[in-house]
Amino acid sequence: MTEKTTQGAGRRRGRRPGGTDTREALISAAREVFTEQGYDGATVRAIAAKAGVDAAMVNHWFGGKEGLFGEAVLKLPFNPQEIIDVILAADPSDIGEAIVRTFLNRWDTTGGGVFTALMRSVTSHDEAATMLRDIFLKLVFKQVIGKMAPDNHEFRATLVATQLVGMGMVRYVAHFEPMASADIDTVAAAIAPTIQRYISGTVT
Amino acid sequence: MTEKTTQGAGRRRGRRPGGTDTREALISAAREVFTEQGYDGATVRAIAAKAGVDAAMVNHWFGGKEGLFGEAVLKLPFNPQEIIDVILAADPSDIGEAIVRTFLNRWDTTGGGVFTALMRSVTSHDEAATMLRDIFLKLVFKQVIGKMAPDNHEFRATLVATQLVGMGMVRYVAHFEPMASADIDTVAAAIAPTIQRYISGTVT
Repeated sequence: MTEKTTQGAGRRRGRRPGGTDTREALISAAREVFTEQGYDGATVRAIAAKAGVDAAMVNHWFGGKEGLFGEAVLKLPFNPQEIIDVILAADPSDIGEAIVRTFLNRWDTTGGGVFTALMRSVTSHDEAATMLRDIFLKLVFKQVIGKMAPDNHEFRATLVATQLVGMGMVRYVAHFEPMASADIDTVAAAIAPTIQRYISGTVT
Repeated sequence: MTEKTTQGAGRRRGRRPGGTDTREALISAAREVFTEQGYDGATVRAIAAKAGVDAAMVNHWFGGKEGLFGEAVLKLPFNPQEIIDVILAADPSDIGEAIVRTFLNRWDTTGGGVFTALMRSVTSHDEAATMLRDIFLKLVFKQVIGKMAPDNHEFRATLVATQLVGMGMVRYVAHFEPMASADIDTVAAAIAPTIQRYISGTVT
């Protein structure tokens, strides 16, 4: 992912000044259209029209719809570098709480819209699930759990995923109260010990 | 739900012998069509056609598409009576494990298809989320958590929901390995303590 970010920055620097604006406009439009339509319903044409640019710009900047989805939607809720930064900054015994707060803070700011779009795509589109899996397991698992637990790294990573995905589903998609409206402190107090155990505690 | 089941049984008993077959055929067809199409995509006409009965039978037996969805899809993964039976049979300290095993056993037998259909509907259809909430919180929460915890009943119920929904999402929808293929003993050993704590442990 670090490589990809570097490449992206390189592409941006190499383009005419208007290019970055086009790219950002496409990402912004894509978030709206993917949120409203889901992955399958969203078309490159509709996203480009909303951004006010030619549809060819999607291929130019993102290599197609899938790449744009990865940039605009998948990277937001699971920005691997942010998770890794949290890990590096937090005390090992507070990793669970740091992770729960990081995800809640990011997702709450969009009213859960980005998370909902992500889950709608995952439930309707195998490719989205594959991308999510690759980002979550290959990056988060390797850099976080690999440092903290002696065993069962992959299994621990999927356990963390169950709790984070379920938290988002209940809070943002199903809107079960009082979870949907609970403040972050309350949710973190309840769920952080679960994440902590999945990362470094007993799971077998 | 006990009332509703009793009403349903009463309806069945009061009809001609072929009625029960029609009803079961519609439930079976509905499961297939809702799984394939999601709630919004599934039509009463398509379900009736697959069942080989007149579309009017859907209104007759279920009061419409919503009622059929509740019977065919929602009741399967969250059959309240089964959860309650588990609670009554299990030792209080084993409730978490009993619940995890009950859900995994039910969902695994359909290869996760019923769960996937449920989540696809929840993410695309607010009414499905409302029905799920009503069934899960009003029934499971009242009869299970109300007996075991002195406080925070509603919050505990939503915490249980986060872990069960997330477990299903990762195992059946996103297919994250090794969670997707892990045997039930392995999954239960890891997740049961979480459910146990959410029901009767410290959550604040």
